[in-house]
Amino acid sequence: MKLLEDRILRDGKVLSGNVLKVDSFLNHQIDVELVDAMGEEFFRLFSGERIDKIITIESSGISVAYSTARCFKVPLVFAKKSRSVNSSDDFYSAPVVSFTRKTSYDLTLSREYISKGERILLIDDFLATGSALIALRDICLTAGADIVGAGIAIEKSYQSGGKTLRDSGLRIESLAMISAMSENGEIKFC
Amino acid sequence: MKLLEDRILRDGKVLSGNVLKVDSFLNHQIDVELVDAMGEEFFRLFSGERIDKIITIESSGISVAYSTARCFKVPLVFAKKSRSVNSSDDFYSAPVVSFTRKTSYDLTLSREYISKGERILLIDDFLATGSALIALRDICLTAGADIVGAGIAIEKSYQSGGKTLRDSGLRIESLAMISAMSENGEIKFC
Repeated sequence: MKLLEDRILRDGKVLSGNVLKVDSFLNHQIDVELVDAMGEEFFRLFSGERIDKIITIESSGISVAYSTARCFKVPLVFAKKSRSVNSSDDFYSAPVVSFTRKTSYDLTLSREYISKGERILLIDDFLATGSALIALRDICLTAGADIVGAGIAIEKSYQSGGKTLRDSGLRIESLAMISAMSENGEIKFC
Repeated sequence: MKLLEDRILRDGKVLSGNVLKVDSFLNHQIDVELVDAMGEEFFRLFSGERIDKIITIESSGISVAYSTARCFKVPLVFAKKSRSVNSSDDFYSAPVVSFTRKTSYDLTLSREYISKGERILLIDDFLATGSALIALRDICLTAGADIVGAGIAIEKSYQSGGKTLRDSGLRIESLAMISAMSENGEIKFC
């Protein structure tokens, strides 16, 4: 998606440790017009499929997932990285090792909001090692839901997550696929 | 807003400890059509004002803030409850005591995404003790921004936050104002 690639080139910042910072339009401040266009693009890419629900991960996935859910006219569920006192006790969970936070946590999703046979489109902002998306997939599979595919805003194709998940049979559509980036600020797309 | 009140009566659950659980349409699963209507209502309520930016708090505030930002055609910024390795070192912060999580944390917002003189509309899902909204207000005031007001999805008017903040001069528009609720499930609106 050229609109997103151009924006990454203009406003993305490559930090040490192979981190791409897109805080100015996606991960802290959100350019609503851009994110709406991303939702429309996911709608176009998966328009041949019946989708019952969009599932994402808090917090950075929510805006992209919301704009996608608007297009499909379906509910959105966001998996949580921590539990509050009003969480249900009846939830699915799967472990995630966070690339940017250098921590691990359990992703949780209430059993109430995912059902056997539901057709799910997963949405997330980044795909790199794939840990978060694998956890989301495993939760859906445990629930007996059908995963139609995954829509990713930015994939680092030189990390293993995309290949591992595609090899497992998951359809992944990434709007921007980064093939290489360096700390002098250079970013290359596939 | 009758649409939201009706939904709270139908699907909200009163848990022990004075907690209202609205996970089925606002805080975990999101009814996009309802949240779009809430954004439109905030747009109507604040339509006489110039708004430069919407500011909310991750995670539950993001969807309502996104739908509101769409209507105003302005960027959205969400304040963060924790910092990742790619956070800026240059941020504002203010302490929050979470009512539902029984914890305290520092709310942070990068100095890059709020400027002196910007006209800010604050959006959040709940207002009870007011701790989170006070922190958000204090961050904006420290940055020298002008707070136009706050749009709240659900206010518990029998708790002190709304009165304290209104007495301080903040305009607050709440879409559903709960005057009382009990653990047998009864919810009363103002």
